[in-house]
Amino acid sequence: MIGYGTVGRGVAGLLHEHAELYTQRTGHQVQLGRVLVRDVAKARVAAAQAGDPEAATRFTDDPAEFAAAPAQVVIEVAGGLDPVDGWIRQALQAQRHVVTANKALLAARGPELFALARTHGVSLAFEASCGGGIPCVTALTAGLMGNRITGLYGILNGTCNYILTEMTQRGKSYAQALAEAKDKGYAEADETLDVSGADAGQKLAVLASLAYGVNITGDQVPCWGIDTLEQMDVAFGAELGYDVKLIASAERWPGHEPVGLSVAPCFIPRDQPLAQIHGSLNALAVEGDAVGPTLFVGAGAGQGPTASAVVGDLLNIVTGSYPAHFAGMRLTPDLHPPAEHVAEADLEGRWYLRLSAQDQPGVMAQITDALGSRGISVSALLQHPPRDGETAVPVVVTTHRATRGNVQAAADAIAGLDVITGPPVVLRIL
Amino acid sequence: MIGYGTVGRGVAGLLHEHAELYTQRTGHQVQLGRVLVRDVAKARVAAAQAGDPEAATRFTDDPAEFAAAPAQVVIEVAGGLDPVDGWIRQALQAQRHVVTANKALLAARGPELFALARTHGVSLAFEASCGGGIPCVTALTAGLMGNRITGLYGILNGTCNYILTEMTQRGKSYAQALAEAKDKGYAEADETLDVSGADAGQKLAVLASLAYGVNITGDQVPCWGIDTLEQMDVAFGAELGYDVKLIASAERWPGHEPVGLSVAPCFIPRDQPLAQIHGSLNALAVEGDAVGPTLFVGAGAGQGPTASAVVGDLLNIVTGSYPAHFAGMRLTPDLHPPAEHVAEADLEGRWYLRLSAQDQPGVMAQITDALGSRGISVSALLQHPPRDGETAVPVVVTTHRATRGNVQAAADAIAGLDVITGPPVVLRIL
Repeated sequence: MIGYGTVGRGVAGLLHEHAELYTQRTGHQVQLGRVLVRDVAKARVAAAQAGDPEAATRFTDDPAEFAAAPAQVVIEVAGGLDPVDGWIRQALQAQRHVVTANKALLAARGPELFALARTHGVSLAFEASCGGGIPCVTALTAGLMGNRITGLYGILNGTCNYILTEMTQRGKSYAQALAEAKDKGYAEADETLDVSGADAGQKLAVLASLAYGVNITGDQVPCWGIDTLEQMDVAFGAELGYDVKLIASAERWPGHEPVGLSVAPCFIPRDQPLAQIHGSLNALAVEGDAVGPTLFVGAGAGQGPTASAVVGDLLNIVTGSYPAHFAGMRLTPDLHPPAEHVAEADLEGRWYLRLSAQDQPGVMAQITDALGSRGISVSALLQHPPRDGETAVPVVVTTHRATRGNVQAAADAIAGLDVITGPPVVLRIL
Repeated sequence: MIGYGTVGRGVAGLLHEHAELYTQRTGHQVQLGRVLVRDVAKARVAAAQAGDPEAATRFTDDPAEFAAAPAQVVIEVAGGLDPVDGWIRQALQAQRHVVTANKALLAARGPELFALARTHGVSLAFEASCGGGIPCVTALTAGLMGNRITGLYGILNGTCNYILTEMTQRGKSYAQALAEAKDKGYAEADETLDVSGADAGQKLAVLASLAYGVNITGDQVPCWGIDTLEQMDVAFGAELGYDVKLIASAERWPGHEPVGLSVAPCFIPRDQPLAQIHGSLNALAVEGDAVGPTLFVGAGAGQGPTASAVVGDLLNIVTGSYPAHFAGMRLTPDLHPPAEHVAEADLEGRWYLRLSAQDQPGVMAQITDALGSRGISVSALLQHPPRDGETAVPVVVTTHRATRGNVQAAADAIAGLDVITGPPVVLRIL
């Protein structure tokens, strides 16, 4: 195993505690071998604290010694691109199966690693890379294989979902909710990767590549974060019966080959199952042409859930089923050309616009004109009372189905009107 | 394929429509061969109506001719025990993999069939037997393998869930909701198998056998149906914040090896995800010691979802991964002794009791005495106004954790009191 952080200790703990159970299940003894760490002394202290003193003799900080030790499978739970990437390649070249939880690596260099595994006749398993404890990679690549997938809608970042739940249910501002998430350990000291949507974008790249049999990298996913979301919009959405969630979506509209990708805060009707996923839970809704809508829910991260996914992969390698699956079910992105994807401007959906307008006659006509002249049909138009000490009134418009490009162009035109103050807010309604 | 009913036509349709997709995914051409039906003329009409004229030449009503035709896999979507059982055994003996959607057969004779498949070096796949479109068999036997499972809670019968949703959300009586379900085709002309809980019990036997690595048959699952549920209890539960669902549960309490099995209408707090599963949807909540709570949701039955599961199994056989999984992951009940299970009286939970009492002093003391003397702690006690034209008042008691046996004994004692009219109603609170 490479790495002995939170997840690594969880994996070591499961392998120790459930040794007998895993032997019953697989007919093989599954034992942890050498563990490559940066700091052996620190790892020994962590092992002793985790009640795993036996593990203490396994640590090495020497990659060459690690590579030379006997192993059939290498588990990578260290994270980051380099030097981990090199160690994984070395393991694959030595015909060792690899289990990884590393979404950043897969989103950036997945195709090369999958191809290398194939070349050497071994497999690369990665259930833990997306959605922590939810076995959604297995569902997408095995259970739902009879379907042409038409939509993926995921809540794939627990930090964002925790913050949005606090903003929605307790009326907190983004800044308040973020500070609390840091206090409670749900957010990192540097929260950028989470709140910008980049983490969810990496997971979406991995999942959408599998679902659509294409090759999508993390940098192809347009991401709008939650860091600019205002409490006012959360509250207006709630009045309309919507909860806001950071949704990673990959859709294929009828007759379109390209996949529409996006990570963005979206409004979801409160009676939809995805709106019921609160706190740090993750969820993935998958729509297939035969199965219809399905939903998978579970813990998005954390020691136990991620270790569960890593060990699940390991046991499926031990029985031989995952290597056969990896070799036989041709879904991984190394087998596919780079995905054509829908331009941001062409993403279709329903939209929420919030404008700040002077309360004077003719304003509504100018707003509806700007929308109507671009073929955008208005579903609802609501003028709220002015906020304390302000003369401008918030105006909320919801639209019927339209492209993001058209809606953004209308919003830009509206922003240019004399009677409008400040930039319009545009959010998708799922 | 054996059978050409709703599901069979769905399978044929997918194999026809997605032929190219399946070849891309598996590297093999997957083609439908002979189809064994009872009435060839009727099947030809159905095939023509389904826009599948090509299928018309494939039908035979002769089991011997069917068995002699070339095939690597036999799909069984006919249902029932005999003669289907014999044809499945014949296929396995001829070293053909079998895919079945037949929960009744698996719940009754699963271990024999699994063992026969092993003897002949082939596999028996059955994702479609439980929960229609939800790939929950795959989740339980592959994705969650690192866990010791501690709880399964399923909404596994769409007919019951439809009826209960109508009773809860629209205040209908059981009889009204059932009549409507029949009108809309959600319930069979003879609804007994569904509303008695027997259908959910068969599915629970299959799923719990896998989850706990034991051998449970359908007849070992105690079933309480929804057919005696009164609208009054649905309404009183709603006042307390509960929705009622028919829950198939298999639990292993800490320190207990035996599995507690039950199918029964249960109250679920409305903010729990399982309470949000409405209409004909199915869901399975799985709790594992590492992963924590997970939830899988999808269509419970119907042509598309069931065909999706059947074809998913088929494609995983074609790639070789399912045969390796079936041989290597030792979960199926043929490998395990019959399960010890918890006696009905020892099932633990929280409980709802509804009594009909005379409105006179001392009644409450007598009721709480009967509970307290059996060590049952009361959580809430609510006396409702008498119903029109009745002198007795409904009294609702909710308890803290207690065994069903103790609660039933207390209810029986309470029923014997002079001040109580009619039998008490006992329902579990999850």
